[in-house]
Amino acid sequence: MSEPLTERSARIVAARRLTRRAGRDAAGLFLAEGRQAVAEALADPAGVREVFATEAARVAHADLLGGTSVPVRPVTEKAAASLSETVTPQGLVAVCALRDVPAARLTEAAPRLTVALAELADPGNAGTVLRTADACGAGAVVFGAGSADPYGGKAVRASAGSLFHVDVVRGAPLAPLLPELQAAGVTVLAADGGGDAALDEVAAAGRLAGPVLWLFGNEARGVPPELAGLADARVRIPMRGRAESLNLAAAAAICLYTTQLAQ
Amino acid sequence: MSEPLTERSARIVAARRLTRRAGRDAAGLFLAEGRQAVAEALADPAGVREVFATEAARVAHADLLGGTSVPVRPVTEKAAASLSETVTPQGLVAVCALRDVPAARLTEAAPRLTVALAELADPGNAGTVLRTADACGAGAVVFGAGSADPYGGKAVRASAGSLFHVDVVRGAPLAPLLPELQAAGVTVLAADGGGDAALDEVAAAGRLAGPVLWLFGNEARGVPPELAGLADARVRIPMRGRAESLNLAAAAAICLYTTQLAQ
Repeated sequence: MSEPLTERSARIVAARRLTRRAGRDAAGLFLAEGRQAVAEALADPAGVREVFATEAARVAHADLLGGTSVPVRPVTEKAAASLSETVTPQGLVAVCALRDVPAARLTEAAPRLTVALAELADPGNAGTVLRTADACGAGAVVFGAGSADPYGGKAVRASAGSLFHVDVVRGAPLAPLLPELQAAGVTVLAADGGGDAALDEVAAAGRLAGPVLWLFGNEARGVPPELAGLADARVRIPMRGRAESLNLAAAAAICLYTTQLAQ
Repeated sequence: MSEPLTERSARIVAARRLTRRAGRDAAGLFLAEGRQAVAEALADPAGVREVFATEAARVAHADLLGGTSVPVRPVTEKAAASLSETVTPQGLVAVCALRDVPAARLTEAAPRLTVALAELADPGNAGTVLRTADACGAGAVVFGAGSADPYGGKAVRASAGSLFHVDVVRGAPLAPLLPELQAAGVTVLAADGGGDAALDEVAAAGRLAGPVLWLFGNEARGVPPELAGLADARVRIPMRGRAESLNLAAAAAICLYTTQLAQ
């Protein structure tokens, strides 16, 4: 077995650049940490450049790493920790190719359920919404300009593997995309606490059955008005209690599950 | 105007102890930071001992602080920051009495919707579930032994004021409480990704209409088996996509919204 790579090895230094968005975009690569993410990544070996694993991780995950055609490189605990954004590094990190697909794919063949995020700020929310979208059968998630990057460490972790299941579109300007999708028959719904359509009424009216795109906005400011103005409806979640609003990821879960039930 | 309290002032040193659970429980007090939380707290002035505010906060929130009978104490920016668990301290912190109610209140008059958390670990999730429970009309949230403390800084912030709307029960042993509630006519449902009852079927069968208690568990391990075994049903959220599971707060949002619709 070769000597483990240290945090000063050229490969690790290069991989560490992937903890920043600029580094990811320059290299076309991102890091997936931990057993669940690495297992999902290795399901498509062509998309994985290499896996870094500490000795403990190679033992613990021998079943996962033993059969793969992807190079598995021994690293020190310190090197693994230098690639991690968690308090408890997993010792197992895959270097993966970015999985972006062009926005044109959506207009060519719109999924029955698409999610678009406008200026969503929190990486944990970005990953959680991606996970929920996957669970509810969404075919694609569009991260509009100004949204958190789904390939950042916190977002990858929060997505719990769903990043590898769903088409990801990044940086697409939503203002021209939404009308194109509407022209292709997609109903665009903006989640809006002050919306004039109630979710249960929208569902009862059958408006969730066809191809639907749900648009979620910033945690504090909501959907930008110029985008909400393009939507076919601004939809609020009816609330019986006294809370002024819902957490964004909770609201998205309710909207997407309700849509899944209708499709 | 008196000199602002510094981070070394006795009052601030005492308040800083409230950033730890042991300190909160010893004093019977907790900290609520930021305009939204402080405004909710001041709606019941008897529950607020004092408010610390920087000069900037006193100017920005003069409307809120001007009319209150609660003492407002000037503090330095540094003192306010020493009480904050956020990256960007708000300069406005209320010292509030813990709002626990005894578990017996639930058995005397069960709310139509109650939420119980068993070993929920993440304070952000604790606050988010509290916020969602409030939005969906829950009357009480029970934080079982081993669950994150709803009075911690992150939980208070994530609850977005809902901590002041809903009855909070802490540290109640759930194993004896659940059968007592069932004897009082409450249907106990355990959220369980491997449950044999699907949420939409449970709803269609009318089982969400009466008094319901939803039990949510640990983010990784789920509901402890000994508690799940007490439930009237173990309920899974049907998922069309490939995600193995949902984020806990997302799953709770779906269960609680579905229940609200049925009640």
